Amino acid sequence: MAQKPSIPKGTRDFGPAEMARRNYIFDTIRSVYALYGFRQIETPAMENLSTLMGKYGEEGDKLLFKILNSGDFLRGIDPAELTGEGSPKLAAQLCEKGLRYDLTVPFARYVVQHREELTLPFRRFQIQPVWRADRPQKGRYREFYQCDADVVGSDSLLNEVELMQIVDEVFRRFGIRVCIKINNRKILTGIAEMIGQADKIVDITVAIDKLDKIGLENVNQELADDGIPAEAIQRLQPIIQLSGSNAEKIAIMREVLKDSEIGLKGIEEVEFVLNTLGSVVGGLSAKVELDLTLARGLNYYTGCIFEVKALDVEIGSITGGGRYDNLTGIFGMPGLSGVGISFGADRIYDVLNQLELYPQEITTATQLLFVNFGQAEAAYVLPALAAARRAGIRAEIYPDASKMKKQMQYANARQIPFVALAGESEMAAGTFTLKNMQTGEQTAVTTEQLIAAIND
Amino acid sequence: MAQKPSIPKGTRDFGPAEMARRNYIFDTIRSVYALYGFRQIETPAMENLSTLMGKYGEEGDKLLFKILNSGDFLRGIDPAELTGEGSPKLAAQLCEKGLRYDLTVPFARYVVQHREELTLPFRRFQIQPVWRADRPQKGRYREFYQCDADVVGSDSLLNEVELMQIVDEVFRRFGIRVCIKINNRKILTGIAEMIGQADKIVDITVAIDKLDKIGLENVNQELADDGIPAEAIQRLQPIIQLSGSNAEKIAIMREVLKDSEIGLKGIEEVEFVLNTLGSVVGGLSAKVELDLTLARGLNYYTGCIFEVKALDVEIGSITGGGRYDNLTGIFGMPGLSGVGISFGADRIYDVLNQLELYPQEITTATQLLFVNFGQAEAAYVLPALAAARRAGIRAEIYPDASKMKKQMQYANARQIPFVALAGESEMAAGTFTLKNMQTGEQTAVTTEQLIAAIND
Repeated sequence: MAQKPSIPKGTRDFGPAEMARRNYIFDTIRSVYALYGFRQIETPAMENLSTLMGKYGEEGDKLLFKILNSGDFLRGIDPAELTGEGSPKLAAQLCEKGLRYDLTVPFARYVVQHREELTLPFRRFQIQPVWRADRPQKGRYREFYQCDADVVGSDSLLNEVELMQIVDEVFRRFGIRVCIKINNRKILTGIAEMIGQADKIVDITVAIDKLDKIGLENVNQELADDGIPAEAIQRLQPIIQLSGSNAEKIAIMREVLKDSEIGLKGIEEVEFVLNTLGSVVGGLSAKVELDLTLARGLNYYTGCIFEVKALDVEIGSITGGGRYDNLTGIFGMPGLSGVGISFGADRIYDVLNQLELYPQEITTATQLLFVNFGQAEAAYVLPALAAARRAGIRAEIYPDASKMKKQMQYANARQIPFVALAGESEMAAGTFTLKNMQTGEQTAVTTEQLIAAIND
Repeated sequence: MAQKPSIPKGTRDFGPAEMARRNYIFDTIRSVYALYGFRQIETPAMENLSTLMGKYGEEGDKLLFKILNSGDFLRGIDPAELTGEGSPKLAAQLCEKGLRYDLTVPFARYVVQHREELTLPFRRFQIQPVWRADRPQKGRYREFYQCDADVVGSDSLLNEVELMQIVDEVFRRFGIRVCIKINNRKILTGIAEMIGQADKIVDITVAIDKLDKIGLENVNQELADDGIPAEAIQRLQPIIQLSGSNAEKIAIMREVLKDSEIGLKGIEEVEFVLNTLGSVVGGLSAKVELDLTLARGLNYYTGCIFEVKALDVEIGSITGGGRYDNLTGIFGMPGLSGVGISFGADRIYDVLNQLELYPQEITTATQLLFVNFGQAEAAYVLPALAAARRAGIRAEIYPDASKMKKQMQYANARQIPFVALAGESEMAAGTFTLKNMQTGEQTAVTTEQLIAAIND
């Protein structure tokens, strides 16, 4: 036998059991998005490389999967280019198209391309795979789904409120206990401004984040090692040791940042979101926590930043998002503010697996198998099979008149809960023997009784 | 403003309205497949090029989208290769991976790769996009969805019966009137055998297919022009002029092919399928017609062949399928027989559009918009908004306190059927003004009445 075929590294096949689980995840997210007035779009897997290049930094350009031009792909290429290493520049000549790397850039392209048809604010969601030529490793794939929702064309903080409600509702439906962490880019900018160290904001958040592990003295030492002057470290102390409720933290921060206009603006935004969620909407199932060390996406987020952690499983962030300005500026349409979230479907899948939180009823597997004893018996069975399906029962007949044992093995392997048999005596009586595969119980039933027994 | 961005030729964006329609198509097909015991799988967009090459003929190899290797893609390539035209051989060196061209080859690869986990017969369905570097033209895309179901590991004709029931049920649910055409490769082989012209079977079916248009004499002339001897044409006359009911056609064919073992076998198979559908299952909604000119997929179908035509729209085949032997032989696992169908989602989409057959309720668009008059009014509205969503109503609040006119324009553009307003007087009364956007009618309602009015 030839060598067993395989699939590219970092990609996956999904069998029936995995598909049922994945569909449950996507369907849940999809219906919550729709409940909040978000509308689904899909964009092509392939985008023009010019749409993708330069949007994800130099490293990102390298991680784009590029598609070789069809036909004579060497035409027009200077032979001098075709030496040495395959350069990114040469790749861009050989390839006009690439696979999408995320859903954000294609969405920005979509908004600009279709701007005449769109009504702003535009609330869209999109659930599609993306591809990255990352080194494959545990939990990191070269093909994976993103589940994004964004609102563009509105800078109202109600959008942030609603996105956090969506996050809360999705995880409530999944039964996953989470903590939603919130921060604001403007607060971080205010802190940097206050201590005159605008370029050190990442170092500062990284150091503060270690407080629990290494203690205050070591954090201060690390800040000093990062080149932050003693005086600035002194002024950072209330921020490093920030604790208490969100309201207490906000009160302290307001004092600390009293001279920073942008910092105060950030605090006001966070306060509005937290207050609206708490007192107006009536609170979330999830815990919401102001966390100044949350510093994701600093090169594009401009306002609120959020991130979701599962409480009962050790795993990274399972959802994240934030506000960005000027998403569509890269395509020549400036001034559109937006805010979005992205559910990490693969990590959510892992969490649901670990906590065994999948509901029983998500399967769409077969409920009833008719055993096949031969042509005459099959002909007797087929009208009952059709009736069962009309009643919405997922049912099949074993297609071949194989040995009984083989057919029962099939039912077991497929975990089919009911098996119906009809031999000579059942045919004479106009009945079926219905076997409950869990209890082993067998009963003689008519077609109607059979349907009722399964649909009860 | 920069040049408007665009997408690669032959690809499409799907906006919210199109997505609702496409989801309706996919969901319908998916639930019928599940009702018949088929189970969903998904395979990666990228396959190893070695999996794909040589499976679709020389022309197909050219139409594969190939993915440039990451990193130094020129490494190990003989510079002498890098001259002249970009050859297929060079492409295979520059690219290890390609995008899937159909769902059949990845399915065969899946079955062989996972054979230890699979229980045969394996009934799988798969709904995913495929990519072909075809010249784009009206109705032909470079990215399109296929919706396939196959049974492998069983040569029972009950599988053919069930697939035709599936086809019938899907189009019944869509409300599309169709004719299912059925033929059998063995009958065609029998005809060729009978007249000693095995290589002329396509010419013969093409010529016969023209009977209605050009008349018997011209068909016979065309057969003669194709190099078929007069004596053979003479023997073909009952086949060319075949008409009547399926039973009548079968009776004639049985006489004509009485000396061809394989031909008689094909007739027996067709007869079994038609009889089982008719007398045992009780018939289909669709017309089923034995059509000897149906000759699709002759290079891989080995038994029954079927094809579906819409009766009320001029369009090509909207679904097709057939039985093949040895699907997995190409990957070193011989002897597995299979039979499958593939729904043409894009053509079905066109047919449903032309006949305006989409049900009203397929939309998942917003049902209720709360107008935003400012921060205090928004705070008053948010609990009602949350209550509406808890009641399953897809609802939103306009995020910004824009002019009333702009908000109503938004509601109109989005075709939102209900708009709720709350200003000073409503807030004092604890009510909302609910406007029915179709009738213009306005009523004062409580939150409960508002929910009841929409959910009635």
